[in-house]
Amino acid sequence: MNAVCLLSGGLDSSTCLAWAKHQGFTCYALSFDYGQRHRTELAAAARVADSIGVARHITIPIDLRAFGGSALTSDSIEVPKSRTEESMSESIPVTYVPARNTIFLSLALAWAEVLEAADIVIGVNAIDYSGYPDCRPEFISAYETMANLATRAGVEGHTRLKIHTPLSALTKSGIIKLAAELKVDLALTHSCYDPDAEGRPCGLCDSCQLRLKGFREAGVQDPVRYI
Amino acid sequence: MNAVCLLSGGLDSSTCLAWAKHQGFTCYALSFDYGQRHRTELAAAARVADSIGVARHITIPIDLRAFGGSALTSDSIEVPKSRTEESMSESIPVTYVPARNTIFLSLALAWAEVLEAADIVIGVNAIDYSGYPDCRPEFISAYETMANLATRAGVEGHTRLKIHTPLSALTKSGIIKLAAELKVDLALTHSCYDPDAEGRPCGLCDSCQLRLKGFREAGVQDPVRYI
Repeated sequence: MNAVCLLSGGLDSSTCLAWAKHQGFTCYALSFDYGQRHRTELAAAARVADSIGVARHITIPIDLRAFGGSALTSDSIEVPKSRTEESMSESIPVTYVPARNTIFLSLALAWAEVLEAADIVIGVNAIDYSGYPDCRPEFISAYETMANLATRAGVEGHTRLKIHTPLSALTKSGIIKLAAELKVDLALTHSCYDPDAEGRPCGLCDSCQLRLKGFREAGVQDPVRYI
Repeated sequence: MNAVCLLSGGLDSSTCLAWAKHQGFTCYALSFDYGQRHRTELAAAARVADSIGVARHITIPIDLRAFGGSALTSDSIEVPKSRTEESMSESIPVTYVPARNTIFLSLALAWAEVLEAADIVIGVNAIDYSGYPDCRPEFISAYETMANLATRAGVEGHTRLKIHTPLSALTKSGIIKLAAELKVDLALTHSCYDPDAEGRPCGLCDSCQLRLKGFREAGVQDPVRYI
C-alpha cells in the first residue's frame, strides 16, 4: 500500500516516515522548498529519505514568501530566541507560517490521488506543538472530511482517505523514544529555525528548545552538534 | 473589507471578481502558474485584473506537473475534443487536475490570513461544471469548516472565514448574463484547455463547448475569436 509522507527533515516527520515504513507502507516522501530561512531542512530531508528508504522523494518549490507574514519566510521578522516555556505557550508565535499544514496536506492529497494512495502521514503533534492551530486533532479531522469530498475517490466512493498522525498524542520525549525504537538516525535530522551558515542549529529558538527538552526528558543525548 | 479572489482568467472567475468588486470588497486577485498547457490563461488573468481593478494581483508558481495525472498538466495525456454532452457528464474527465481547488483554496487561505481578510471568492459552479468533485457545494462547505480550524483567526475566534461561491447555482448562460450586468469585458477572458500558439481557443474541448453553449443559450455573441 502506498502512503504519502510529509517530510521536513526534522525529528517529528523523520520519525513519522520510519513509522509508516514499519507499518508496511510503500512510502512516497514529500518535502517543500517554501522559502524557509532554514533551508538546511531540505538537505536533512534528502538524507533522511535516503536512510529510511522511500519509493520516491519529491521536493516541491512553493513560494510562500509572496504572502509574507511569518518569521520563517520573511527576513524582516526575527526568529525569537531563549523564550520561556510560559511565553511559548501564550499565543501563536511569529514562526507560524499561515496555512502551512493546509497547503502541505493539499499537495500531499494531489500526489496521493495520482498514486491511488489512501494514506497520508503527517508529523503533527498536539502536546509539545508550539501553539500552531494547524497541528490540532480537530483540524486534522476536518481536513480528512474535506479531502474525502475533494477527490475522485471521494466521488466514486471506492477509497476512503485517511490522514495518519502517529505523533499526535506523544510528548517530545515520547517521540524521541519512538524514534529510538524505530532506529531513526537522529543525527541526520534538523529542527532549528535559525541555523548558522554551516547549518548548525542555534539551540535557542523555540524548535531547538523543544527538541533539547525532549532529549533531556528522554534521558538521551542529542547526536546533533549545536553552535 | 479585503477579499482574496481566485482568478484563472476564464469566464467564471472573471465574473466572480467583478461580483466581489460590486459587493464592495477590496479585491486581492490570486492566480497560479501550475504548469497548465493553456498558459494563455495567465495573460488573460492579468488583463482581467487590470480591467476590473484590484488592490494587488499575485501569480504563484506551483509545479503540479511533478505529480502528473491530468491532461491539463501532462503532455502525454490528450485533451479530449468534440465530446457529446452525455459523455461529458458521464465521469470525471482527464482534464481534472488532482486536488486543484483544494490547493488553490489553501494558498488563498494563507494570503487571506496575512491580509486579515475573512472572505475568499471562488468561481466554482455546481451546474455546468464538467464533473469535477472539488466544485461541489458539499466540498466547499467542508473546506470552510476546515479553514476555520486551520488559522489564527479560527483559534482566536475573532473572525469567521467565509468562502463565497456566487456562481454555484447558475448555469453557464446565467453566468454570462451576470457578467453582462456587471459589465465584465468577456473579450479579455480565456476558457480553452488547448489553444493554438497564438492563444486562440480551439472551440472543441469541453471548456470551449460549455462556454459556447452558454453564449448560445444566453442569446449573446461570444466576443472571443476561435481558431
